[in-house]
Amino acid sequence: MNKYKKEDNISYALGTTLTLYLLDNHINDVLRVYVHNKQEHNDTYNKIVNICNKNNIEIIESDKIFHTLSDKDNCYIIGAFKKFDTKIDFNANHLVLVNPSNMGNLGTIIRTAVGFGITNLIIVKPAVDIFDPKVVRASMGALFNINFKYYDNFSDYQKDISNRTLYPFILNGENNLSTVKKDNTYSLIFGNEATGLPDEFDHIGTTIRINHNNKIDSLNLDNAVSIGLYEFTKDNFVDKK
Amino acid sequence: MNKYKKEDNISYALGTTLTLYLLDNHINDVLRVYVHNKQEHNDTYNKIVNICNKNNIEIIESDKIFHTLSDKDNCYIIGAFKKFDTKIDFNANHLVLVNPSNMGNLGTIIRTAVGFGITNLIIVKPAVDIFDPKVVRASMGALFNINFKYYDNFSDYQKDISNRTLYPFILNGENNLSTVKKDNTYSLIFGNEATGLPDEFDHIGTTIRINHNNKIDSLNLDNAVSIGLYEFTKDNFVDKK
Repeated sequence: MNKYKKEDNISYALGTTLTLYLLDNHINDVLRVYVHNKQEHNDTYNKIVNICNKNNIEIIESDKIFHTLSDKDNCYIIGAFKKFDTKIDFNANHLVLVNPSNMGNLGTIIRTAVGFGITNLIIVKPAVDIFDPKVVRASMGALFNINFKYYDNFSDYQKDISNRTLYPFILNGENNLSTVKKDNTYSLIFGNEATGLPDEFDHIGTTIRINHNNKIDSLNLDNAVSIGLYEFTKDNFVDKK
Repeated sequence: MNKYKKEDNISYALGTTLTLYLLDNHINDVLRVYVHNKQEHNDTYNKIVNICNKNNIEIIESDKIFHTLSDKDNCYIIGAFKKFDTKIDFNANHLVLVNPSNMGNLGTIIRTAVGFGITNLIIVKPAVDIFDPKVVRASMGALFNINFKYYDNFSDYQKDISNRTLYPFILNGENNLSTVKKDNTYSLIFGNEATGLPDEFDHIGTTIRINHNNKIDSLNLDNAVSIGLYEFTKDNFVDKK
């Protein structure tokens, strides 16, 4: 058993809850489930075993893989799955991340995007690997509920879209997030954690800034994205509790 | 030179920018500055040396401390500083974190809070150590621009305040964040990353929920806090660019 590799066609859901989420959402991509001898035979465990038995998914009792794949002491179940393809809905709203470099951030952003109903994610390379187990774990399984597509550059993405407003988030954007008029169909675009969006985005679509004082240089990426997602989607959630 | 210890009276700003930020904001608490032999003698370095010379702060050229304190390869300057006390402004708006357990989250939250002008932070124990170098670094120096105070429990904090609305953020809060009437003076209250706020907060103040769909269990803490801070402060930033 080797470490996770970006080049391989297999990834891992680390932990009991995450493995259950994997089974519930991507059963056809599950290859096998590993169980550590310290795993309690509790309700969640029983659920996982039942699903595996029903679907002829092999359960392997072995502690070795846990040392290789997990740096957390309390991870006692691992779900191995085949990396899967998804199809972007080009009529839906998109979140576009240009050159995201931090795996934890990417996972957290996916979780928030899914929660706010933005389930189509564009990633412009170079970028982190969405199937890295660290991303999967930080997404708390929300990765199993989004469509995503990698592009080599932003202009390739532009060729695939029409009839939507592009909103690049930049420090000196022309429009204030809280008051800008929001189109019904949109792509929210965010740059790299350290460098933001390249200068070319100053002249693309409707640029947006999130106002803050000058005591900080910028918001961190995943906070900026979560605020942007919230502001653009909050009217969809007014009556729900 | 030992590792950072919570019990000691000394902490560290890891990195060139962070050390400059420390010198600019808390010069009287700086004990000494360490420089690695790989540090380039660039503009920021010269600034740091000038400030240290003007203020009789010792500069120590040594690589040893970097192995002990930093896990990042590109950290070549460390500012050692005396842990400092701050005074909460009990007339200002507060951010209250109950049992925060993740150092990176705490730092990021402080950065966003300072950016949105909320510079008084209450922390209810048990909680992470705000002076841990990981928190200092994740705050990008914003820690040097806030007032903070630890309380053993929430009721001790309640004894110190008056004339403000308490807004606990809970999953089933009575009020929707985006439409709730906002008092002018307030405390925004958030719970632990994994467990949220204890049940007693259901009956304190004006409870708030951030609406999202049921594809996720909850938002992660630092995204929830950043959204709450944004919504409560955005009207202060409407005309600024």
